[in-house]
Amino acid sequence: MRDIGIGLIGSGYIGKTHAIAYNAHGSVFGGKAKLACRTLAEIDETRAEEAANALGFENSTSDWRSLLADDAIDVIAIATPNALHKDMTIAAIEAGKHVYVEKPLALDTAEANQIIAALEARTDPEQPLVHMLGYNYLCNPIISTIKAMIDAGELGEIIHFRGRHNEDYMANPDVPFNWRCSKASAGTGTLGDMGSHIISMAMHLVGPIASLCGDTDIVVPKRPDETGAPRAVENEDQAQAIVRFASGTMGALETSRVALGKKQGLAFEIVGTKASLEFDQERMNEVRLYEGSGAPGRSGFKTILVDTSCPDFAAFCPAPGHGLGYNDLKIIEVDRLLKAITEGARVPVDLYAGREIERVIDTWVLSAQERRWIDVGRL
Amino acid sequence: MRDIGIGLIGSGYIGKTHAIAYNAHGSVFGGKAKLACRTLAEIDETRAEEAANALGFENSTSDWRSLLADDAIDVIAIATPNALHKDMTIAAIEAGKHVYVEKPLALDTAEANQIIAALEARTDPEQPLVHMLGYNYLCNPIISTIKAMIDAGELGEIIHFRGRHNEDYMANPDVPFNWRCSKASAGTGTLGDMGSHIISMAMHLVGPIASLCGDTDIVVPKRPDETGAPRAVENEDQAQAIVRFASGTMGALETSRVALGKKQGLAFEIVGTKASLEFDQERMNEVRLYEGSGAPGRSGFKTILVDTSCPDFAAFCPAPGHGLGYNDLKIIEVDRLLKAITEGARVPVDLYAGREIERVIDTWVLSAQERRWIDVGRL
Amino acid sequence: MRDIGIGLIGSGYIGKTHAIAYNAHGSVFGGKAKLACRTLAEIDETRAEEAANALGFENSTSDWRSLLADDAIDVIAIATPNALHKDMTIAAIEAGKHVYVEKPLALDTAEANQIIAALEARTDPEQPLVHMLGYNYLCNPIISTIKAMIDAGELGEIIHFRGRHNEDYMANPDVPFNWRCSKASAGTGTLGDMGSHIISMAMHLVGPIASLCGDTDIVVPKRPDETGAPRAVENEDQAQAIVRFASGTMGALETSRVALGKKQGLAFEIVGTKASLEFDQERMNEVRLYEGSGAPGRSGFKTILVDTSCPDFAAFCPAPGHGLGYNDLKIIEVDRLLKAITEGARVPVDLYAGREIERVIDTWVLSAQERRWIDVGRL
Amino acid sequence: MRDIGIGLIGSGYIGKTHAIAYNAHGSVFGGKAKLACRTLAEIDETRAEEAANALGFENSTSDWRSLLADDAIDVIAIATPNALHKDMTIAAIEAGKHVYVEKPLALDTAEANQIIAALEARTDPEQPLVHMLGYNYLCNPIISTIKAMIDAGELGEIIHFRGRHNEDYMANPDVPFNWRCSKASAGTGTLGDMGSHIISMAMHLVGPIASLCGDTDIVVPKRPDETGAPRAVENEDQAQAIVRFASGTMGALETSRVALGKKQGLAFEIVGTKASLEFDQERMNEVRLYEGSGAPGRSGFKTILVDTSCPDFAAFCPAPGHGLGYNDLKIIEVDRLLKAITEGARVPVDLYAGREIERVIDTWVLSAQERRWIDVGRL
Repeated sequence: MRDIGIGLIGSGYIGKTHAIAYNAHGSVFGGKAKLACRTLAEIDETRAEEAANALGFENSTSDWRSLLADDAIDVIAIATPNALHKDMTIAAIEAGKHVYVEKPLALDTAEANQIIAALEARTDPEQPLVHMLGYNYLCNPIISTIKAMIDAGELGEIIHFRGRHNEDYMANPDVPFNWRCSKASAGTGTLGDMGSHIISMAMHLVGPIASLCGDTDIVVPKRPDETGAPRAVENEDQAQAIVRFASGTMGALETSRVALGKKQGLAFEIVGTKASLEFDQERMNEVRLYEGSGAPGRSGFKTILVDTSCPDFAAFCPAPGHGLGYNDLKIIEVDRLLKAITEGARVPVDLYAGREIERVIDTWVLSAQERRWIDVGRL
Repeated sequence: MRDIGIGLIGSGYIGKTHAIAYNAHGSVFGGKAKLACRTLAEIDETRAEEAANALGFENSTSDWRSLLADDAIDVIAIATPNALHKDMTIAAIEAGKHVYVEKPLALDTAEANQIIAALEARTDPEQPLVHMLGYNYLCNPIISTIKAMIDAGELGEIIHFRGRHNEDYMANPDVPFNWRCSKASAGTGTLGDMGSHIISMAMHLVGPIASLCGDTDIVVPKRPDETGAPRAVENEDQAQAIVRFASGTMGALETSRVALGKKQGLAFEIVGTKASLEFDQERMNEVRLYEGSGAPGRSGFKTILVDTSCPDFAAFCPAPGHGLGYNDLKIIEVDRLLKAITEGARVPVDLYAGREIERVIDTWVLSAQERRWIDVGRL
Repeated sequence: MRDIGIGLIGSGYIGKTHAIAYNAHGSVFGGKAKLACRTLAEIDETRAEEAANALGFENSTSDWRSLLADDAIDVIAIATPNALHKDMTIAAIEAGKHVYVEKPLALDTAEANQIIAALEARTDPEQPLVHMLGYNYLCNPIISTIKAMIDAGELGEIIHFRGRHNEDYMANPDVPFNWRCSKASAGTGTLGDMGSHIISMAMHLVGPIASLCGDTDIVVPKRPDETGAPRAVENEDQAQAIVRFASGTMGALETSRVALGKKQGLAFEIVGTKASLEFDQERMNEVRLYEGSGAPGRSGFKTILVDTSCPDFAAFCPAPGHGLGYNDLKIIEVDRLLKAITEGARVPVDLYAGREIERVIDTWVLSAQERRWIDVGRL
Repeated sequence: MRDIGIGLIGSGYIGKTHAIAYNAHGSVFGGKAKLACRTLAEIDETRAEEAANALGFENSTSDWRSLLADDAIDVIAIATPNALHKDMTIAAIEAGKHVYVEKPLALDTAEANQIIAALEARTDPEQPLVHMLGYNYLCNPIISTIKAMIDAGELGEIIHFRGRHNEDYMANPDVPFNWRCSKASAGTGTLGDMGSHIISMAMHLVGPIASLCGDTDIVVPKRPDETGAPRAVENEDQAQAIVRFASGTMGALETSRVALGKKQGLAFEIVGTKASLEFDQERMNEVRLYEGSGAPGRSGFKTILVDTSCPDFAAFCPAPGHGLGYNDLKIIEVDRLLKAITEGARVPVDLYAGREIERVIDTWVLSAQERRWIDVGRL
């Protein structure tokens, strides 16, 4: 089997995570299909060349469009700021490449609709195009076990989901105004950045969100720009919502970039009629499970460590509790991509699911403006 | 100083907690003012006599109204089912007794308004009447320290409060229909029972709630009645709301009686601009504090155990970390009552504050029905 | 039934704990037998009178020997510094009173032997004398559940016990020299103070200690005396030992009064062939249990909260997880005393068991001096 | 700069971990020096070829000695069962290759001495030979921060170290007899396997161990052999010791392969005169720190998550709390190797330190046999 050639656009924080995953994937999963790091595109020649060298790519370019015409490249991986996602994704689709876009898919639902339109205009059943979003938290083996528990009915009926993704990287008011504070560059604030993660998790585990009533808040109204002058922050620092899933299940969601003390604060609690469970990404190798069937004096939340019964874990290590790290989730995600291309497997979040997340975010913002419940489907 | 005579109505779960507190109070706080357990009223003579004997009361009666005319009784303590609170409280007020009512104050705001009307009709500035509600979780020394931190500005501006009081005592659908499931007996379901606790805590720490958008849910629609026949549950098993405090602070509240795994699940997280903190009543002798001023690599949530720097703690034990129990909170609450009577000190929750909690609950229920934000003041 | 009259010697930290327990006991346990707080003895008249008033005793005295001749007093409760235990205990025995001595029993095994000699010289089968030591941690309902699990074989064979009781109240080298630092007043240092607690727990749960190899250490060699001059500390600040129980089980023990961060650091871990468990007194209302019979991916340490399946708990509260406090353990201990007197029930630690604890301590000290394993029975 | 060629012997559990690290290293650390996976040696041709293909090696061989003569190979990495370490390591040294041996160095001190003899016989100052043992837990960024804290005096004087490495992979008595149960193949049991990890950690953080008194125990005396017949286990299932470090610091060590519930149970607690800290590999991205300088009511163990202030962490991710996994520690270890080769940097554990660990183990075993304290230096 030919190697799967990767063309990566962007070598920042998440671009590097991609590169580590592409390089490690083969020795972890050891399958026949291999990934080849072909070309890295960056904003200028120097940066591109340095990044390609550091991250193990064969070639570099300052022209990301050149990847589209390169026959050695099968996948366009997009790890750029959000405002660039739409055009790059559409271009990749139109070039017939598989696309692997970092979350969030786009600045808003309108952009997401344009992407879907491009996808639907093009799709050729004989040459299926794989499209996947980078929501790597969903690839955690412990999350896969949680999902398997839910699917098998171990929790009974899910009656409540409470989730949040809070961090504190903007808690200090002296953190300068940056692209994430601008509507033009980032769309929403914490909602697109981290809110999208907890929304994707909620939907992954409990299904579509039918309606919500949300609230948003700017905590630090002005931040210093590059000259030190105060500049108005244009999008929310924190947001919360109560929701109803399509299943009727109640839920509550929250996200913040100013929540002092939280570093990778994606966490959720699920209450079922047979069992409840709790997860916190800051302790990503464990889940806390309470089984309602226990005897008095012998029941309690059980802290279960990841082990080889969890999907994908055994590829990393045969020993239980020898935990994975943040970067390992990307290796699993890359394996999902590879299996989608080579075996037609499903991906955790495709472009349609990515658009659905945008819809929830836009509904949330609108609901906060209008102070009322809104059905997600209406957008 | 004359002893303060107590007349207690009700000897169930919470009535017994009262009795333990009255008996232990003297040796814990050791002040000059003493409490005397005068008369215990119960539903019939036998039960009253047995309870008085077991709980250390001098006399017993099956006629609670007889306490009103007894000069040896200074305080009417009401530890009966919710539907009885209103009449007993009004009678006590009219008899010129201090009143100590278990939470929640009443079945709804309308009843609470009647109580306040009685209070205002009667109040004689020369004979001030102490009125206090039994929201004992507020009396925890760790909570007092948290409140002191907030008042001193250690947390900076509070930007988010998330709280819940979830338990699982009704999670099993085989738990029979009982008075708590009936609107006539209990008013609301989990909202009045446990929701009132987290509301009282939110207001104690962050101030009045200005507006909210709530949702409620019946998870177990029918429960077996005494014959085993299914009977429709009349009030909510779980409820959630997003709120705005009068200060503008965002908040989220939740309560459930069907949350598998939670036993005394009153918990909250407060995010401030200078520090954040987390509390869980299931580990009631500790608070987790994150101070934003810490150095990189030296910052984290600090698990602080109760010690003598916490108000009231030293009365129990001079040694740090030698934790208090649930019943000890009632001993402190009783001390608040005593100090209000003998020194004119403020109580944690008086009848006005108790009514405010009813207002929040009623607003929540109405908001869930009408699926919209409602200002609390409008009720 | 006549009330059981208590004569208490000492009103310091632990004396007050006694008083709270005597006063609260009736309303908690509600049995027919009642305790009566007769007389409190203190070092001078004023202090005795103040303490009796504050702590709810009928009478006061500066002459503890006067309690011995008082027919209204059934129990002599000894809550004085360690060096006074021996003479008071012997006097009580000789006066035919029940004795309730705070731990540790004496300064060393030699003193303990004198006490046992007095007991054996006197004991009259027709007038059985109850003797109990105050090792209140053993009375925790969660500990009773742990013991019941062990006795029922739920843990299988116990193969390892690791325990410690560490605190930090002497960690600061500026803490002055006090009676606990003196061999004459306290005997050992942390061994008698807190080591005795973890030894009593180990023996309570795993049985007699057969042999050990111990080590001791003075961390702060000199402390300021009352004039501020440095005075040599005479006994150990920290100590550790490896042991073998009579059952053959391996164990490790540790105690420290200079372990920064530990406030009530009595904790242990037990490994069995069927299950393991962990307990920490700083979270005294929970036990962590790992059952070996669990399925892969569903096994983990379960945090079990105290509930009514735990012995004694229901007397305090019918609701699970509504935890007890440090003082509540004394209420249970007092109930053990009462049941021993009125029903002939066994006490958790009697004088013989108390002497055994002294033997372990003395063996530990000797082993540290001679740097070798020593059989406990040889002392 | 020329790539550093790796010849790896062994492709089991730990051999695969090596391969993942070699492949990922470049994109993580991005330096100029690169590693090249040249040849993988396994026990037969088929297995070697399959492993080389799966793990990303250029060539394969069933003759590990062929690596010694290969000029393209700079480093011999030895990931074979313990009994093979000695001969392979000596051969590598004699061939002038850098050696990277998995722990433990050898079956006992005698073997380790032979290795050191070969090293000293050979060493040529003009062609320095790098020798490193695979004790990857020491490479954890959080451990590096802990070490930095200690070196900077943040803990004050260390007065106690308690450590253990307990797992439960042999807890089930039905686990068959395997090479780890045999003295000839494995030397010691849990001591060499996991005990060596906690010993290496203790020495890394607190310095050399001067003397100890140890105990060992076989819990499951017989295990089924390949025919199902019972076969006597030849080495210890669990072991404990009290130690004194060369600094005079007290310590306690423990290791077990039958400790139900522990999966990667390397954990330790360090008490210092200024601060204390606690670490547990099962939550490897955090350390709990108690600073003695805190104010009353504001002091507690702080849970600090890994961040970019921790050495090596930033190479993986710029965001705090985005934790590393078990395999990532190997990537850091490989970077240590590379920097030792290319920059002359020190390695965490070289052959001398590896021998010292064997000495401690052998002293422990001897001490258990003779039931006395033994100075480590005497072996």
